[in-house]
Amino acid sequence: MSTPTSDDVRAAAATLDGIAHRTPVLTSRTLDEETGCEILLKAENLQRAGAFKFRGAFTALTALPAGTPVVAFSSGNHAQAVALAARLLGRRATIVMPQDSPAAKLAATRGYGAEVVTYDRYTGNRVAIAERIATEQGAALVPPFDDPAIIAGQGTAALELFEQVGELDLLFVPCGGGGLLSGTLLSAGTLAPGCQVFGVEPEAGDDVRRSLAAGEPVQIEVPRTIADGAQTTRVGEQTFPIIRDQVSGILAASDEQLVAEMRFLAAYLKIIVEPTGCLGLAAAREHARDLAGFAGRPRVGVILSGGNIDLARFAELVA
Amino acid sequence: MSTPTSDDVRAAAATLDGIAHRTPVLTSRTLDEETGCEILLKAENLQRAGAFKFRGAFTALTALPAGTPVVAFSSGNHAQAVALAARLLGRRATIVMPQDSPAAKLAATRGYGAEVVTYDRYTGNRVAIAERIATEQGAALVPPFDDPAIIAGQGTAALELFEQVGELDLLFVPCGGGGLLSGTLLSAGTLAPGCQVFGVEPEAGDDVRRSLAAGEPVQIEVPRTIADGAQTTRVGEQTFPIIRDQVSGILAASDEQLVAEMRFLAAYLKIIVEPTGCLGLAAAREHARDLAGFAGRPRVGVILSGGNIDLARFAELVA
Repeated sequence: MSTPTSDDVRAAAATLDGIAHRTPVLTSRTLDEETGCEILLKAENLQRAGAFKFRGAFTALTALPAGTPVVAFSSGNHAQAVALAARLLGRRATIVMPQDSPAAKLAATRGYGAEVVTYDRYTGNRVAIAERIATEQGAALVPPFDDPAIIAGQGTAALELFEQVGELDLLFVPCGGGGLLSGTLLSAGTLAPGCQVFGVEPEAGDDVRRSLAAGEPVQIEVPRTIADGAQTTRVGEQTFPIIRDQVSGILAASDEQLVAEMRFLAAYLKIIVEPTGCLGLAAAREHARDLAGFAGRPRVGVILSGGNIDLARFAELVA
Repeated sequence: MSTPTSDDVRAAAATLDGIAHRTPVLTSRTLDEETGCEILLKAENLQRAGAFKFRGAFTALTALPAGTPVVAFSSGNHAQAVALAARLLGRRATIVMPQDSPAAKLAATRGYGAEVVTYDRYTGNRVAIAERIATEQGAALVPPFDDPAIIAGQGTAALELFEQVGELDLLFVPCGGGGLLSGTLLSAGTLAPGCQVFGVEPEAGDDVRRSLAAGEPVQIEVPRTIADGAQTTRVGEQTFPIIRDQVSGILAASDEQLVAEMRFLAAYLKIIVEPTGCLGLAAAREHARDLAGFAGRPRVGVILSGGNIDLARFAELVA
């Protein structure tokens, strides 16, 4: 697989059938009244391992020769997604994580049967560690976003959404390294050509917007934001051209907006969504009505990308 | 309608079609591993107005002559359910609530367009107030559980569950006044005759268990429990005979068990369930394996009945 296409997304959907959850689409009359839109929330926080990341990880692992051990570096949702996918496929998995990762995340990753190798985030080199493991074990490195199989797998969330709800006018998608956004664009391109797709970054980490302006991937410092799933410092080499050619625009949301949406989703929808998972909703609330550019009530899709947040931290943010 | 039957549940399902949410059935591999069962969670916390109560309230209101104003007394999920159902049907609704109800609940009920009449819970008589309003307005009193249309409406949650997942060995249902439990029994009786249905009360408020032992409804003091949706002091005259004749057993769960399940559901399923809503899961975790009485892995349904809890309180309990 080189540049992924919508056919690859369809193939990934077949691979994931009966393995990934077909997550529900949730709605709220209050949200519709507040926004003047019909908002359809694709609840990937209810996905296995708590985020859309499982879709890409499982797809990527099935694309490898049977039995290949895998290695990944991540302190977030990708770690757990790769660990779970490996367990389901009977593969050995090693996850390289910062020594000071929250105990809950270390435990969850080990709980899925992965071996965890820790490193000092100030002095260690996670890439070098992962490469050493890959060499020693003959393991394949599973990248978090910049990979055709990962992109195709992430695209299955939007594919399902279109199957579940039909046509949309607008679709808002969280954007870090661009895996979910580029996969979504592949799905929308063939299934919903009339749908405008927007990526949403944290305000503090608007590297994709700046990359589009520059015409090439721009590197930024690690952004200061509570959206830890979108703290990437550079969009992918493979995700960027898809985004550049097909996205309708890149928007941003502030941490304050993300907390407000976490509260709203908890109070009205009774679901727990992590800060990064609220990027799409925050932008939809602020911009959907104007972007639709017509008098009627636009049909607006939003991908709630994940729900992995420490409960104490969640309590602190929403209470 | 006198004694409700499974046909009434089917009729209620037709009434609710396209109006109540067809709530998703959620699963967790971790939960299955921990319990040795296949657990299927009917997520009525994701129902409109945040609880199964909307099913019964809407069904009851459509059973009244068109345009009839309604009155109800409740400080909980029934208040919001009646208010929302009335708004959808263009009816005038008055809800009698304690003066010291949480501001959020008063606001939510008013937010659905209902008029709220408050009373002093120590000196006031809510029944007398409701009856005065009924007389003045020609309004119908909508009881929280002891009513054939309410029972039939609540039964639609289990009917949907059986449609969604097929046969079950066991089903665990929260039990306060018995509306949800009796409706569930009507559904199970025809759709799933092989399924054992258990009601689950708070340990401190085991009036239904005692009523079954006594052969008639037993009155208890207001039980001290965090399961505020099951603080009823007496099972219904109409719900009791259905429960007596068809239930496989009544179990109980402690407040500690309910908090543990709230934490589990938040951490693993990413959903917010109120304490009462966790009664079924707590009992399933403790008893399902033994009650199944066979070597294989039983298929176990659980109704998560609601998700209405103040966010600050939720944060305090789970953090």
